[in-house]
Amino acid sequence: MVYPKADSVGITRTKYFTIQDRILLESGREFGPLQVAYETYGTLNDKKDNAILLLHALTGDAHAAGYHSEEDKKPGWWDDMVGPGKAFDTNKYFVISSNMLGGCSGTTGPCSINPETGRPYGLDFPVITIEDAVKVQKKLIDFLGVKRLIVAGGSMGGMQALEWSIAHADMVEAVIIIASTSRLTAQGIAFNAVGRNAILSDPDFNNGDYYDKEKQPERGLAIARMVGHITYLCEESMHNKFGRRFQDKDKPNFDFNIDFQVESYLEHQGQVFVDRFDANSYLYITKAVDYFDLAQKHGSLKQAFEKTKARFLVMSFTTDWLFPTSQSKEIVQALIKAGKDVSFCEIESPCGHDAFLLEFETQTKIVKSFLAKGAQGE
Amino acid sequence: MVYPKADSVGITRTKYFTIQDRILLESGREFGPLQVAYETYGTLNDKKDNAILLLHALTGDAHAAGYHSEEDKKPGWWDDMVGPGKAFDTNKYFVISSNMLGGCSGTTGPCSINPETGRPYGLDFPVITIEDAVKVQKKLIDFLGVKRLIVAGGSMGGMQALEWSIAHADMVEAVIIIASTSRLTAQGIAFNAVGRNAILSDPDFNNGDYYDKEKQPERGLAIARMVGHITYLCEESMHNKFGRRFQDKDKPNFDFNIDFQVESYLEHQGQVFVDRFDANSYLYITKAVDYFDLAQKHGSLKQAFEKTKARFLVMSFTTDWLFPTSQSKEIVQALIKAGKDVSFCEIESPCGHDAFLLEFETQTKIVKSFLAKGAQGE
Repeated sequence: MVYPKADSVGITRTKYFTIQDRILLESGREFGPLQVAYETYGTLNDKKDNAILLLHALTGDAHAAGYHSEEDKKPGWWDDMVGPGKAFDTNKYFVISSNMLGGCSGTTGPCSINPETGRPYGLDFPVITIEDAVKVQKKLIDFLGVKRLIVAGGSMGGMQALEWSIAHADMVEAVIIIASTSRLTAQGIAFNAVGRNAILSDPDFNNGDYYDKEKQPERGLAIARMVGHITYLCEESMHNKFGRRFQDKDKPNFDFNIDFQVESYLEHQGQVFVDRFDANSYLYITKAVDYFDLAQKHGSLKQAFEKTKARFLVMSFTTDWLFPTSQSKEIVQALIKAGKDVSFCEIESPCGHDAFLLEFETQTKIVKSFLAKGAQGE
Repeated sequence: MVYPKADSVGITRTKYFTIQDRILLESGREFGPLQVAYETYGTLNDKKDNAILLLHALTGDAHAAGYHSEEDKKPGWWDDMVGPGKAFDTNKYFVISSNMLGGCSGTTGPCSINPETGRPYGLDFPVITIEDAVKVQKKLIDFLGVKRLIVAGGSMGGMQALEWSIAHADMVEAVIIIASTSRLTAQGIAFNAVGRNAILSDPDFNNGDYYDKEKQPERGLAIARMVGHITYLCEESMHNKFGRRFQDKDKPNFDFNIDFQVESYLEHQGQVFVDRFDANSYLYITKAVDYFDLAQKHGSLKQAFEKTKARFLVMSFTTDWLFPTSQSKEIVQALIKAGKDVSFCEIESPCGHDAFLLEFETQTKIVKSFLAKGAQGE
């Protein structure tokens, strides 16, 4: 652990909550019991109305802020945004972060043990949706005693925040959506499909039943991650980071080993990823992302938002081509048509989609100002 | 064969030319003898100066126009552009098209028999460059007796056309470059790297030695092609073609089979591709594309073009994000700085990079006008 600064939440611990009853999934299947991994930072007030629920992106987990031990080198995934005095100010707010249903970081997912068989679910795990994930989060929020909350998330986290604002309109006071969308583009589905294909084609995938095998579908998962990383960056950021520079030399190899820095970066990202993520979870969660489509479900995006009672902050980034500004504007326009209170900001950034995990300074200013406006209004 | 129209070149035949001597490759290796597959349309004039050499893109072949038999259902890859009265008018020009070195459609490549071993080269085939491919084409052009020529190509074909204009400045009268670049972006390299990774990770790849095996690296090659197709289209064209529509139904599968039309399209493209292309060739040719960098080789793009004596026509497409307009403009600006004669046109198209194989009407007008200007000037 880097010596914790005054604005760090310090040492945190992942806790577990068990849902004993079965949940009716969008697919029609019932599923349960299940476990939810979560962390909290700050204190819930007496009125139980100062909570902020953070929703993670594709491969995130419950560990949003702080360190798990003194030896921990890296803090949680949104540490720059969560802590005393930060955007999500733990002096004021009770901040909650949980691992998504279907994930592989403590919440029940395909790598969890199926109590009926005593073996990991694998592909017996039900196909889930963003709506299902929110259903599970709602159980956690009720368990924690929260009465009203703010929901916030980037990328897939933003999808969940949107779903929260509709499914639990009476509880959600404000919604912060960053680099997100109300539905993936055909191109977005295509990239996810390629990633899934790489996993499904890996001979070590073994129809999802690989947990006790000697080999795991690591190459397939690594390739899926490589494709992902191309979409999280943008040409501008790749040009700035790597250009056409060769790796550790100034000449081509003239073979099929790694030649260019950008190849080395992708290879590294793929390798690091297989150590921390489960191939089956990647299948399930990308599928949930593909399925999410508020307009299709509710008739139109405007109709989808008619029930919400929340204030909205929508942010996008100029170089994000995966969840482009045009998609954020679609959300904003539908909210305006539905007569809702919405603030929108497109942030100039060279970082592509990844900007929501990098552009803390600007995000912090905008989020703080948005949250302060709410506090004044109360 | 569809009943040939008056503007078709009709039945054509792929011919073969053998280069007996060895060629010094950019890597420093010598290679040969080798065979070149080529087709010609129209007649070479007495002055031997009415030739147009067409250069194909990544997975093209020598069969640019016409049909191979009465039963042939599909004509050559640029049939709409080549024929009597067409953009490349075979009444006026002697049009030549050859399969690229390293390819798998008749020109020597990794699937060809290595005379030293009596078995296919596989990964013993030397790593080649765009410059090497042009060296081989030059031997063919000399063999055909051509003295002066026009070179034209889209995408990777444009790279070869650029190289022709520099390496054989005295022979090249005009250059037509469509949806191309003088060097791939970092993002472009990244996409190629993912494709190669998919092939290299396929257990049936067997270090490139799979030709006599029961199984071929078909899944890896199919995934590489899927990634490619995402980059050949654009979000606009994917939206128009598929949107978020499900395949043959209006509900999700809730499993990992094909759900969306765009998934079905990619799967189909992958499947069709493995029947006509060789995985090793895909490795070698994408590598050649990655390496091509005129500015790096010549000091600057302006310096690269100083030797050329040709007129240039550069075309790009508004929705091409693989070889975007900005890269065509880089070529144009360098040509202007070098004092060369250059025409530039950005064509409005919703078809992405693939537009050079689709937008015939506009391309034909522009190419005809460009070629007519040259004929007047003579």
